Parts: sequence; C-alpha cells; structure tokens
Amino acid sequence: MTLRLSSPLDMHIHFRDEEMLKLVAPLTAKTFSGALIMPNLVPPITTKEALLSYIKRIKEATKEQADFEAFVTLFFQADYSYEFLEDIKDSIIGIKLYPAGVTTNSETGVSSMDINVLRPTLESMSKLGIPLCVHGETNGFVMDREKEFMPIYESIASAFPDLTIIMEHITTKAAVDLLDKYPNLYATITLQHLIITLDDVAGGMLKPHLFCKPIAKRPEDRDALLHLAISGHPKVMFGSDSAPHPKHKKEACGCAAGVFTAPIALQVLAQIFEDNNALDNLDKFISLNARKIYKFTPIEKTITLIKKDFSVPSSYDGFNQTVVPMFANESIPWSLK
Amino acid sequence: MTLRLSSPLDMHIHFRDEEMLKLVAPLTAKTFSGALIMPNLVPPITTKEALLSYIKRIKEATKEQADFEAFVTLFFQADYSYEFLEDIKDSIIGIKLYPAGVTTNSETGVSSMDINVLRPTLESMSKLGIPLCVHGETNGFVMDREKEFMPIYESIASAFPDLTIIMEHITTKAAVDLLDKYPNLYATITLQHLIITLDDVAGGMLKPHLFCKPIAKRPEDRDALLHLAISGHPKVMFGSDSAPHPKHKKEACGCAAGVFTAPIALQVLAQIFEDNNALDNLDKFISLNARKIYKFTPIEKTITLIKKDFSVPSSYDGFNQTVVPMFANESIPWSLK
Repeated sequence: MTLRLSSPLDMHIHFRDEEMLKLVAPLTAKTFSGALIMPNLVPPITTKEALLSYIKRIKEATKEQADFEAFVTLFFQADYSYEFLEDIKDSIIGIKLYPAGVTTNSETGVSSMDINVLRPTLESMSKLGIPLCVHGETNGFVMDREKEFMPIYESIASAFPDLTIIMEHITTKAAVDLLDKYPNLYATITLQHLIITLDDVAGGMLKPHLFCKPIAKRPEDRDALLHLAISGHPKVMFGSDSAPHPKHKKEACGCAAGVFTAPIALQVLAQIFEDNNALDNLDKFISLNARKIYKFTPIEKTITLIKKDFSVPSSYDGFNQTVVPMFANESIPWSLK
Repeated sequence: MTLRLSSPLDMHIHFRDEEMLKLVAPLTAKTFSGALIMPNLVPPITTKEALLSYIKRIKEATKEQADFEAFVTLFFQADYSYEFLEDIKDSIIGIKLYPAGVTTNSETGVSSMDINVLRPTLESMSKLGIPLCVHGETNGFVMDREKEFMPIYESIASAFPDLTIIMEHITTKAAVDLLDKYPNLYATITLQHLIITLDDVAGGMLKPHLFCKPIAKRPEDRDALLHLAISGHPKVMFGSDSAPHPKHKKEACGCAAGVFTAPIALQVLAQIFEDNNALDNLDKFISLNARKIYKFTPIEKTITLIKKDFSVPSSYDGFNQTVVPMFANESIPWSLK
C-alpha cells in the first residue's frame, strides 16, 4: 500500500540554532515542502538583522533540499512600530506571541496579556495582514493553563476581527470548542497530542521524552483533538512543535520540555488517519488547510509513504548532538519510500 | 523557640531491604518512636517466615535506637486462611492491600477488587481485629485513579463495619470527603501531599524527586488535605510514605516513584503546622490519633525541635546507597535539637 502526500507542511517547528539546527533542519526539509520556524532562540528574533541572519543559517543547513521552504516568524513584542512591521512583512509568515515564562526560551515574552498593552503591535499586524501565532497558556495550574487562556483568545479575536489568530499546539477540548466561535481563530495540533495523555507522561513512570509544553492532558481532551484533526476541519493544521533537546538534557533531570517528532511525523500521522478511516482528510490536515489559512502556494513536492515497518532509531546524531525521537526503538507501520 | 514532640509515629513508610534498609531505617528510628513498615519487598511478605526474618533485619538495622519500634505489615492476599492470620496476628499491625500494578513492587497485588474475591481474608481480618491498609488507586487515568477508588472503599467499609480501614496516602478532596461517611474509615497523609501539586512535579520542569504514587493532584486537593491534617481530625494520621530509591534510578529516567522524606518530615511538619497556626494539633496528627486508631501505646520518646535553619543535605549516603531527600540543598526553618 502506497500513500502520496502532496507538499506536506509543518506549521509549527523548532529548529533552534547552530549545531542543533544543522542536525534537525535537514530532517524536516527531507519530508516536508515547507515549515513554519519558531523564533524563540536565545536571544529571540526581534530585529530584521537577526531574522535575515537566521534565514541564512536555515538555508545553509537545508541547502541540499531545494524542494523545501522555511517560513520564519518574529518574536512578538508589544511595541513594534508599524513601519518596522511593514518593512519586515514580506520576510515573515507570522509573529509568535509568548506569555513570559510559559515555555522554553520565553522569558522575554509579554508579561501582560492585557489587550491594551498588546494593541499597538496587534493593530499594525491586523492592518498589514500578518498572522498572529500564540502559545496560549497562563501561568496557572498545569492542567488548567490552556483552558484559562481561552478568554484571552476571545478578547483578541473579537477586538481584531481582521487578524488571523492561530492557537498553537492546542491540547484541550476547551480550545477545540472555541475554534468555531470566531471566524478568525485557527489552530495547530502536534503529533503527540493526538496520541498521548498525561498518563503517558507521568501515569506509569516519568517519561521525559514525552514531556512538553503544553503538557498532554486528559483522555477526553486527546479524543477531541483527534476527532478535530481527522475530520478535515478547515481551520486546523498540523504543527509538530517538534523540539529537539540534547539527550542528556532530557534525561538527566527532565530539564527540557519538548517532543522530537520531525523525522517520524508523517509516517505516524498516516497511521493515525488510517486507523480512523480518515486517510481522505490527511492532505487537508498536513497541507491544504495551511495553504488557505496562510494564503500561500507551497513548493510542489510529493512524499510517498509505503505500508512497511520502520524501526525508529534510538537517536538522531550529528554535529555533536544526540536527539531522541518519539517512538525511539519502536516499530511504526509506515515508512518513507 | 522549642517544640517537644511526644513519641512521634510514621504510620506508613518503606524501609525496603538489605543495604537500603541499613541506610534508611536508622534515619527514621532516630526521630520517630514507631513506624509502620510496608511489606512490598521483592518478593512481598506473605509468609510467617518472611515476616519474622524481616523483623529481625529491621531490628538489626535499628539496634542502636532502643527507643524505636517497627510495626510490620503483611502483603494482602485474598486467600489467607483464618488459622494463618490468627497465628500471625500478634506479629503484625495490619495488612496492606495493593491492587496489582498500581505502584512499586505491587505486581503480585490483588487483580480484582471485587468484594467477593477479597471476602475470605477480609472476613478473618474483621473477626481478628486486624486493620486493613489500602493503596486506593484504580488503573485508570492518573488524575482520576484515587477518586475512582472511592466506591471500592465504600463497598468494603459497608460490608465489613467492624474492619478498621486505612485509606493510605490520600491525595484528593474526594478521599477527604469520604472519610467521615463511614465510622471505620481512616486515612494517612504524606508530607509531600500537604505541600505540592502536580505543578511541582511537571508544571515547570519534570521533577523526578517529587514524583510519587499516587501522584500529587490539584491545588484544591492539596488544600483539602492540608485543612484536614491541621484540623486535628481524629481519623487522620501522618504516614510519610517515605520511599528511598537510589539516586541514579530516580534521575536517569524517572523510573522510580516515591519521595524520600524520613529525615526531614518532623521538621517540615512543624513548619506547616506553625504556618497555619495549628501547632496545638501537631501531636494529634503525628502521634495521638494513630495510638487510638491502631490501639497501642508507643515507646515513650521525646523529640525536640528548635527554630533554627537546617540545611538539608544533597543526599544521604551509606552502604553504597545514595538517596536524595525532599528539599535537598534547601534550608528549612526547624532543626532537630
């Protein structure tokens, strides 16, 4: 059995920088036509210089894959000037907003989600047609953080009806339920949140390689996400949030949040959609919806999967980096041709 | 400021065996007058020979503390004969029931919580006046396991009104709410569940040293437990569930559930009760209630605490074992005199 995927897109991924970038960017570039790269480097990308320089480094790291395009983002600041955003607009696909302290390298994120504080930049983005990508978590109790953020999504969506807002890596039924309430709200879902719950992270033994932010939630949340993804709903896109952390950092003390899924994402998504009799909707989730939401035409690239067991390696290594993927040392039923 | 504690008791602790027993048993024997030792060794204690031999090893490990008494337990099996239990009765303080697979070394626990399956042993225990200690968790979703177990407590408590039932290491408001519904239901609470929530285990980074079973729950659960403990409620006792695991096992992959609190438990409890203006009830929680529930008079022993900072060591070491305590490398405001 063969599956032909047309220009798959990963609309939320972390490439990081330097040696890690060199290791992981080609793994995404190999199987995806395009990917939206998050800007939470250290320091985060907030200037044109930093942005152009990062684009250059990504291009260098992926130069062997001419059929891949990296879409970069800017790190949200509440006081970007209209002129700055107008100037940078054509170099970016969106701006990523992090509340301060909610995830890896988000310390310099916004310290207030008050709409009046955010207004200057949001107003300019709305006028210029720049999409807003949001890590939607409060600093509350870990299982409630995303749900508590829903009123903030509502306030932004209603105050800026022309702004395209993407609820990134949603993990709760609350976010699924909010999606259709505002025409300008969209969402990405990761691979792992279609599969795991908190049980898999901390129900048996602690599993640092399945620990990510937002943390996996309850079974009814996972089920709502899965149902949304396989339904072909036009407002939801695949965004792996694949986040490479060095093996020693993940395992030594669990001091790194993020699941590395880039090299196995398409194969496992094929399995999930097949298991749910939804293969007809896979292209929508991994490509077609994103093109419409972000209004672009990706590079034409066909990825062929075959129904053949693939033994996921224990790690991906190179450039003095070792990263452990989801399903390490396990067998998955679809392979890249 | 000085605090004199009269015969403090830890009514739920794991001493394990061999070298680990030699390291940790003296730490409890030093500051407690007595402790209830759990029987989930490998293999678990299910025979008189194993029990007497374990008592001997515990005595040997604590021989320098003549003012300490270890109360041992048997590992529940559904088919213990009345004669066996009658014979062993005076050597044990209770019998510990583990549903199979819910925690460390519980693989040989009961595979069905059906009251009719458990009846033979429970009936004999009820007649002989042997208390039942229960690890009350189902195999359900990690945040629901204890709550889902409440109907099982209810069925045992109503079917055996003369049986003393201790809900061990309760972690939820649901268990707090059940406590007063049946006169024969009692509870222990650990140190960590008075302090932490899931946020502390997985809300920031993964904290393997705060990972235990049952896992810490929501803020409202922690608040209900704290309120119960400091109230002096007569049906609740301190049971640390202090569980030593070698440092490398805790940190390498989070493959060990349990928090090691034995050497700092009394000091931190003093702080908690002081912070809540409840020092008058501390003796009830750590000694008086247990004497009444288990009907025994402990060895007289006074432990004096002084209000002086204590730097908790990074680990307790000996016998080729290294165990990391809660609050390692932190300062706590009460010290042993």
